[in-house]
Amino acid sequence: MDTKPTAGYSATVRIEYPNTVGMLGKVTSAIGMAGGDLGSIDIVSIDRNLITRDINFYAAGTEHIHQIVKEIKKIPHITIKQVTDRIFAVHHGGKIETKIKYPINNRDDLSLVYTPGVARVCREIHENPKHVYNYTIKGNTIAIVTDGTAVLGLGEMGPLAALPVMEGKAMLFKEFAGINAFPICLDTKDPDEIVSIVKNISPVFGGINLEDISAPRCFEIEERLREGLDIPVFHDDQHGTAVVVLAALYNALKIVKKDLGEIKIAVSGAGAAGIACVKLLISAGANPKKIIIADNWGIIYEGRPDGMDKYKQELAAITNPKKVTGTIHDAVEGADVFLGVSVGGLLTRKDIIKMAKNPIVFALANPVPEISPEEAQPYARVVATGRSDYPNQINNVLCFPGFFRGLLNARVRRITRGMEIAAAQALASLIKPDELNEDYIIPSVLDRRVQLAVARAVERVAREEW
Amino acid sequence: MDTKPTAGYSATVRIEYPNTVGMLGKVTSAIGMAGGDLGSIDIVSIDRNLITRDINFYAAGTEHIHQIVKEIKKIPHITIKQVTDRIFAVHHGGKIETKIKYPINNRDDLSLVYTPGVARVCREIHENPKHVYNYTIKGNTIAIVTDGTAVLGLGEMGPLAALPVMEGKAMLFKEFAGINAFPICLDTKDPDEIVSIVKNISPVFGGINLEDISAPRCFEIEERLREGLDIPVFHDDQHGTAVVVLAALYNALKIVKKDLGEIKIAVSGAGAAGIACVKLLISAGANPKKIIIADNWGIIYEGRPDGMDKYKQELAAITNPKKVTGTIHDAVEGADVFLGVSVGGLLTRKDIIKMAKNPIVFALANPVPEISPEEAQPYARVVATGRSDYPNQINNVLCFPGFFRGLLNARVRRITRGMEIAAAQALASLIKPDELNEDYIIPSVLDRRVQLAVARAVERVAREEW
Repeated sequence: MDTKPTAGYSATVRIEYPNTVGMLGKVTSAIGMAGGDLGSIDIVSIDRNLITRDINFYAAGTEHIHQIVKEIKKIPHITIKQVTDRIFAVHHGGKIETKIKYPINNRDDLSLVYTPGVARVCREIHENPKHVYNYTIKGNTIAIVTDGTAVLGLGEMGPLAALPVMEGKAMLFKEFAGINAFPICLDTKDPDEIVSIVKNISPVFGGINLEDISAPRCFEIEERLREGLDIPVFHDDQHGTAVVVLAALYNALKIVKKDLGEIKIAVSGAGAAGIACVKLLISAGANPKKIIIADNWGIIYEGRPDGMDKYKQELAAITNPKKVTGTIHDAVEGADVFLGVSVGGLLTRKDIIKMAKNPIVFALANPVPEISPEEAQPYARVVATGRSDYPNQINNVLCFPGFFRGLLNARVRRITRGMEIAAAQALASLIKPDELNEDYIIPSVLDRRVQLAVARAVERVAREEW
Repeated sequence: MDTKPTAGYSATVRIEYPNTVGMLGKVTSAIGMAGGDLGSIDIVSIDRNLITRDINFYAAGTEHIHQIVKEIKKIPHITIKQVTDRIFAVHHGGKIETKIKYPINNRDDLSLVYTPGVARVCREIHENPKHVYNYTIKGNTIAIVTDGTAVLGLGEMGPLAALPVMEGKAMLFKEFAGINAFPICLDTKDPDEIVSIVKNISPVFGGINLEDISAPRCFEIEERLREGLDIPVFHDDQHGTAVVVLAALYNALKIVKKDLGEIKIAVSGAGAAGIACVKLLISAGANPKKIIIADNWGIIYEGRPDGMDKYKQELAAITNPKKVTGTIHDAVEGADVFLGVSVGGLLTRKDIIKMAKNPIVFALANPVPEISPEEAQPYARVVATGRSDYPNQINNVLCFPGFFRGLLNARVRRITRGMEIAAAQALASLIKPDELNEDYIIPSVLDRRVQLAVARAVERVAREEW
């Protein structure tokens, strides 16, 4: 539960009350007194005796919505007609749909888009398979593939409960980059099956976005798909996060005047995001010898007996050369950068105080960061989180729509590190030197320049590497 | 190639010519003389000296388009600027897209449709999986699944070349029944893999429409999916065809005043459509002992050594009790009904003359029927084809959109024969007794009453059988 009212817990209450002066004020005060934030107020109907209004408010949680409604109920002469939870209301019937590009009004329309006309297009693609990109949705359509094993911060929710997230993601692809994205929620967790299914459904798609698949299975699935497919495969939890982290770090380092190749980085979390961030940072020039990663089992070092897998071993072999042991509290000592992609409430001010001068703190756990910005701020030079209610929100949506736009525009077959780094640079450079400051190291997710900049960077590298 | 100009071969030619009297007439005459049908004429630009026009015409085939353009070219002072093939033009970039139900303009919108709001919907579905029907696209979304092995009359085209057909089908689902249908074109022909994939991708869908999968694999795939899934599975080439054939037959029998239980039926074709039609006819009351089926190997009888499979054997055991042998030409002797779901140009007038009095001929092979209506008409009482340019078009689109509308509305888990028969009756009864005649036994595909009638019939039976 968030501690402040947010649009994530938004309700509309329909109330009826006598048409006398002062009633509305009592309602809005009750909402405010109960800790809610007032939203819009609409009139539904009005006559000489009665008024019916829809009052929208934000709360800090489901329970809080009920509490606020209870407070409104206590006001004499107020009748509550209906309480609508806005989240569930907008989810009713789903958030996306298919749309047809031409109406079918007569036999000619039918003959053009269906039989007999369509047969000629089939024959054309049969003879020239590449033309599938010209005459079908493939060139602008991707699959959002999940098995529901690592949904948001909720963990394993299964394919049905993952669907609302995938639909939301599909909306972002469409709204921000004009891409048709369709959710594929798989009723299997077996990597072999997932790889085989994605390969077999790939003819319709121009790209695959893997989503919310738990580590380390996600690494193997992505690797095998990248080898087996001639369309790009992108695991957003890994690469989307890594690109945005790198972009934010580029700008944070400008503020503290430190060099990516010189800094010491302490990373908390060795899941999909943690591993991918470290790899991309190294590709971009960070010195692996100055990186220490910690996970549930403590600091990762070569030969650690517990909690290792192939991917952690790979990183253990090149990071933490002194084989420092201990926990994240040891890792942050003298670090220039703390990168948290793990769990909330992990650090305290004491940890930040132990860091090097002008510390950079990226506490990206959601919804509760590894350390709250309020606690970190007095000691850290730059603080970023994954949340929209603090400055410097590190959000994947800054990357994935534009990144895929670039991939599809250039008909990229395989994603390269060069594309990811270029995307991060493009993102970072949207903030002009005179705009850059501790509270503005990364553009807003609603900054409409973002997706085009990322797309162009990916396209440019794709053409250079061709 | 069709013999008459159709919208299936439609081109737009952009011509430029001196602004003098009589030029346009020369162009339209040239098109007519070359055998084309003139469509719309538009002005693109005009000044004192020159006119540019778009002239649209229909041809009988691709070669015919070129011939017509050649004829236009021969006219003095005419310059051809561009020739656009309308079929390929409407297919450019595909025919469907995803649409989002709400725009994302600000952080509140993001919080409502994506994080953090969406997490509550995930938890809700996780706790109550049935609510996936309330809060996601599942309840109004189906998959159109093909392996590209039997695309239209074209045969095995593969998954890429099948995609334009599936997109066309998706358009029909949306236009006629408001259903979100998404194409899944599989890069495997292995029934085990197909069954496993469809099961594993089923969480997102409220129903599965199998399409253009070759027989006899389609039977096994459908059976196994029906057993393994809790959403309805419908193979349109089988059941869609069978429902519309039964509907048309109900009405044809009213005209000739014969009874379904009494008639002798000769069937040509034992593929998906043939087998399904025979089974549904029997379920609806046709006497299997009076049915004879022929395929590539001739008349099917119990114990026939060649070209048999499990599904043909099943029907051989209950039809053709006298074990008549020979070809379809023998089967039609004395038949009241000929049902062709096979190949063009199979029968001649001699075959129709051999049939019983008031013969009913359904020659459904496409684009060339088993016997042309021109040849059959003088001898048959009722003739139906699969073509839109003759009366009595037997077209699956009369069934599948409404049928799935009914399935989704009633949240049907398994399709029953009762639903199919009810759908056929509903379709047939749209033609009132005083409208019914030899040339009007089945409604038009553009008759907007059709889908609602079919949907209601399916829903009604679903609720009765509940």
